[in-house]
Amino acid sequence: MTTDLLRQMNIDIETARQKASFSAKDMSTVIYGHEMVLDIANKLRDLLNNEPLAAKAGTEFLDHLGQEKELSDVEVQALSFVSDLSSPLTLHFAAFIAVIEAQGTEEQAAKWVDAANKLAIMGCYAQTELGHGSNVQGLRTTATYDRNTDEFLIHSPDLTAAKWWIGGLGLAATHCVCQAQLIIDGKNFGPHIFIVPVRSTKDRKPIKGVTVGEIGPKAYGGFNTVDNGFAMFDQVRIPRDNMLMRFAKVTNTGEYTKPVHNKLSYGSMVKLRVGMIAEAGMKLGRAATIATRYTTVRRQFHGDAPNKDGLEKQVISYSSVQHRLMPLISLAYAMVFAGQTIALDFQEMNRKLMNQDASMLPDIHLATCALKVWCTRRSTDGQEECRKAMGGHGYSIFSGIGQIFATAVPSNTYEGDNYVLAQQVGRGLLKHLGTIAKGGKVNNGSCSYMNYLASADATSPVPLDNAMAKAILDPQVQEHIFGLRAARLVADLGQQLKSGRAWSDVNMECWHIAFAHAEYTLLTQFHKKIQSLSADDKIVEPVRRLANLFALTQICHFNTAPFLTTGAIRVADMGAIQSVYRELIAGVAQDAVAYTDAFHFSDNELNSALGAYDGRAYERLWEAVQANPLNTDQGRKDIDECLLKILHEGENKKIAAKL
Amino acid sequence: MTTDLLRQMNIDIETARQKASFSAKDMSTVIYGHEMVLDIANKLRDLLNNEPLAAKAGTEFLDHLGQEKELSDVEVQALSFVSDLSSPLTLHFAAFIAVIEAQGTEEQAAKWVDAANKLAIMGCYAQTELGHGSNVQGLRTTATYDRNTDEFLIHSPDLTAAKWWIGGLGLAATHCVCQAQLIIDGKNFGPHIFIVPVRSTKDRKPIKGVTVGEIGPKAYGGFNTVDNGFAMFDQVRIPRDNMLMRFAKVTNTGEYTKPVHNKLSYGSMVKLRVGMIAEAGMKLGRAATIATRYTTVRRQFHGDAPNKDGLEKQVISYSSVQHRLMPLISLAYAMVFAGQTIALDFQEMNRKLMNQDASMLPDIHLATCALKVWCTRRSTDGQEECRKAMGGHGYSIFSGIGQIFATAVPSNTYEGDNYVLAQQVGRGLLKHLGTIAKGGKVNNGSCSYMNYLASADATSPVPLDNAMAKAILDPQVQEHIFGLRAARLVADLGQQLKSGRAWSDVNMECWHIAFAHAEYTLLTQFHKKIQSLSADDKIVEPVRRLANLFALTQICHFNTAPFLTTGAIRVADMGAIQSVYRELIAGVAQDAVAYTDAFHFSDNELNSALGAYDGRAYERLWEAVQANPLNTDQGRKDIDECLLKILHEGENKKIAAKL
Repeated sequence: MTTDLLRQMNIDIETARQKASFSAKDMSTVIYGHEMVLDIANKLRDLLNNEPLAAKAGTEFLDHLGQEKELSDVEVQALSFVSDLSSPLTLHFAAFIAVIEAQGTEEQAAKWVDAANKLAIMGCYAQTELGHGSNVQGLRTTATYDRNTDEFLIHSPDLTAAKWWIGGLGLAATHCVCQAQLIIDGKNFGPHIFIVPVRSTKDRKPIKGVTVGEIGPKAYGGFNTVDNGFAMFDQVRIPRDNMLMRFAKVTNTGEYTKPVHNKLSYGSMVKLRVGMIAEAGMKLGRAATIATRYTTVRRQFHGDAPNKDGLEKQVISYSSVQHRLMPLISLAYAMVFAGQTIALDFQEMNRKLMNQDASMLPDIHLATCALKVWCTRRSTDGQEECRKAMGGHGYSIFSGIGQIFATAVPSNTYEGDNYVLAQQVGRGLLKHLGTIAKGGKVNNGSCSYMNYLASADATSPVPLDNAMAKAILDPQVQEHIFGLRAARLVADLGQQLKSGRAWSDVNMECWHIAFAHAEYTLLTQFHKKIQSLSADDKIVEPVRRLANLFALTQICHFNTAPFLTTGAIRVADMGAIQSVYRELIAGVAQDAVAYTDAFHFSDNELNSALGAYDGRAYERLWEAVQANPLNTDQGRKDIDECLLKILHEGENKKIAAKL
Repeated sequence: MTTDLLRQMNIDIETARQKASFSAKDMSTVIYGHEMVLDIANKLRDLLNNEPLAAKAGTEFLDHLGQEKELSDVEVQALSFVSDLSSPLTLHFAAFIAVIEAQGTEEQAAKWVDAANKLAIMGCYAQTELGHGSNVQGLRTTATYDRNTDEFLIHSPDLTAAKWWIGGLGLAATHCVCQAQLIIDGKNFGPHIFIVPVRSTKDRKPIKGVTVGEIGPKAYGGFNTVDNGFAMFDQVRIPRDNMLMRFAKVTNTGEYTKPVHNKLSYGSMVKLRVGMIAEAGMKLGRAATIATRYTTVRRQFHGDAPNKDGLEKQVISYSSVQHRLMPLISLAYAMVFAGQTIALDFQEMNRKLMNQDASMLPDIHLATCALKVWCTRRSTDGQEECRKAMGGHGYSIFSGIGQIFATAVPSNTYEGDNYVLAQQVGRGLLKHLGTIAKGGKVNNGSCSYMNYLASADATSPVPLDNAMAKAILDPQVQEHIFGLRAARLVADLGQQLKSGRAWSDVNMECWHIAFAHAEYTLLTQFHKKIQSLSADDKIVEPVRRLANLFALTQICHFNTAPFLTTGAIRVADMGAIQSVYRELIAGVAQDAVAYTDAFHFSDNELNSALGAYDGRAYERLWEAVQANPLNTDQGRKDIDECLLKILHEGENKKIAAKL
């Protein structure tokens, strides 16, 4: 039943591709960093499409697949572009094994990691408790050293100490790495990490003294492929050697040696946050791809100036749709670029940490906190905005965006609640403010904008009066404006605290500072990405346009107020900047399909009837709906029988017959 | 296993109640408008708690209940406070019957409404098609008059014309009121409404020529108690009398009489939007109640100044939590108050419409469009913010907020997509701008701020220099600021269009205008509510505090930029206003539990382990989780057997045995 209107949908999306001002393939290489990574990612996509297990179980077994096929490190890295991997195995690899490798001695790693890699044991990372999440120091599970048997006793004093939310613990895990207060001779040495068995590998029954189970469904049907669990411990005995002792140690006489640097164990936490940055970008990219394609093929209203061909206007041609989707495309790119850079920085930092050198930690910690906060919030808000921009059909499960948001949105509250992390950004920058106040200079690149406060630049708004349109597109002007705003917000915070406001009263100031710091970082990384391309590459201009849109989106759309209240931009200049912003959006909209095609998602990954590559949204939606079991005679049998009995008998039967 | 820490949770919430500066009961009366409505609502809550059907099926059968128990109109109105009613019956009553009553002749109403009330037939409202939602004029289903048989032929020309999303059509409906293009002798008279049978009341099989079914799950698991459906018609014959003919008519000779006023049929659409305003407020109220209670009993971190009792700080004492939740409480109140007022206005308008008097329609239409846009967006954004403010546990299904958002969020795109409706607000206000430009005066109360443009007031920012703190809390100053901002945004829109920008290019300007208009309306209604209370009532001050918080939330938190760019507020004054804002939040936070208790939701309605009245969040969460079937031996049997086989056999068995 393919009619002209239906055929038009495929024509519309192909036309958009043909009209694009650049090659989506070239842009893919920019996004993925190297052609090689893109190639591997695409091979993985094929593998995923053809893997019966994956087809049946979704992405659940992708990690495992990685193991079985013995992928190289680079290939595994490319995996991160292919899909979000949520399964009991995700944290087995990303947390259980990673923590043992990072915090165990080499002997401990040799003992446990091989067994874990072969899945002879299944692990999880048991930190959060029912009563303690953000306050890790306040965890109540205890690990008490028993000198007589050279063992630790793992114990949960009450319900609030129950381990909770632990991914993989609900059904799968046989072991956990468990954060517990180390207690020796009645003295508490704070949280340390212990390997604790929870289920027998012989019969999978709970280990004696362990109460373990699944915590039930999550909001929005999200993360339903992960078995989040709980566990309580009743004096469970483990050998002393089950404490991870790379940094801190306990001897068989109960002597405690503390780590050289008390933050050496932070590496694992930072690592998880680093991964979240590019991931947030790719997830927003998926949502933006779906919404861009669907609004390209959906037509609605003839408008004031009807098309010559008699067709209604493409929904993507409406300025409201462009103003909602185009900025989000620029955000997705910015997150991916920043995520790539910080992952490299992290690798370097980690090498140093392994040698007990924590010098890079404070700055990376500050940057990842700010970026984790910003990227998870903007990405998940943006995903839902994409869904809304699709109108009514966006609410169908078959739009595919619902599942992205449902599983991504807890990233706002896990791996450090965003509002808690924002305070750490505030604290970190206050230290730099102190340096400036003492006449010093901030040498850390990502915070160097703080030096504005020591210069004449800090006293007045950026002068944009002359040739405004050109000035606001100058990368240096943009970085100046973003840096000035961030620096002045920090200076104002310092002032507020000086005038007597309590630290607990300035959470929101820290929130705005975290955003300002993240946006400065994202903008400068975007500019560095452009500098890394050869200047005569045809792809440079389209990337630059997106960087400009990213910059002006922050100023005109998301976060106008702090630019104005800090005087980084004058109210009088806003009209002209908004006019440039509108031009940028209209320009990006012309290439929206190419910009999103460049993420190179397969239809399988997008899992969307409305966002497939061929644009045949209505036909695919119709097909998806026909597969509903409720639409078969058998599927309706019980319902129809029930309704016949309660609605259509007796008096009602007579009434209906007369109509 | 109730320990001191667990008991403390109940103590914390009861202490908050005791410390409240006003009676929650008194505040309930303010919210519900009359003590009588509150009493009835509470009776309905009891009824719902004790109704086995309701206990089993959730709120699904509440409407039906209303029918069976023969509730009065007032009682039915009180129902709207008790729960969101989403079931196949919702639209049977709210749309199918309502449309026949509003747009059918008295004879038609007599024939169909009685049968429908007795559920001898089940109806739905079939307007949206796969290819047409917002553009109702573009619907493609046709109703062609056949003179020979005095019948209409209902027909879907292709897939894009399939009726889609129709609530109640998926499984339940036997009939629909169907929007279709009326065609007589080849001439198209535009969309009209026809009663079309879709399933037989004898055997529930589809009527000959009808393809009907269910469209599958919705995003986020929302609305899963409603059977949204699709239908296609292949030349389905219905008697001429099945066209609803209160306004337009077709005679048995095929003569067409058009309605006296071409917008007389808009009443039904307006009605659905009117209902959404208070509903949005109550849903946000539910989410805010849950989040307020949970953050009152959850404690985390000792903070810089540890509590004397050795307990960690209550999460609600953190400024970031207060800054997120307190404004939302003020929003929920504002929506409920405005919703009540506009419902009364609508009743008056509807009485006039029934007498073919459409004079009130333009203003009510404008107000309901702006309020629908604002309330659905702010309410659903706010619900999700409440969930996030609860931290990690907010993501559990047992927090209860997920389901509220999942079912509420499509209100942004249904009953008129928000961005489409915003354009109607822009258009409406441009007409008033025209009046001003011609030297006229705008007499419509809700748009009277447009008159600022004709006065000296319009030329400069509101002078707040003297006694700033006091001035910004003056209701007249607030209304002046809000009115000035709205008026100047409209004036700027007029200017932009004059300078040559196309109407299709100014969607976002209309969006901001819709928000400004809604906020002006909500603020003035809040002030009117205060005026309606007797001045010596002790409850006035707490209500006034919330009105002030509502006003300053718009200025300081949500929408600062337009106040600054329109010059309604000067940048230099923002610091002082923010300081007042912070004081208001801290003040409201002291009474947060009382403000939310006043919504008077039952634990049953909230359906939240974390937000129950007694504050025992952890114990209730534990209980909810223990009910998980996966936590029984039987429930785990298959999983354990499978894992034993694939993980713990052969080589792996040996490896694990050695650990």
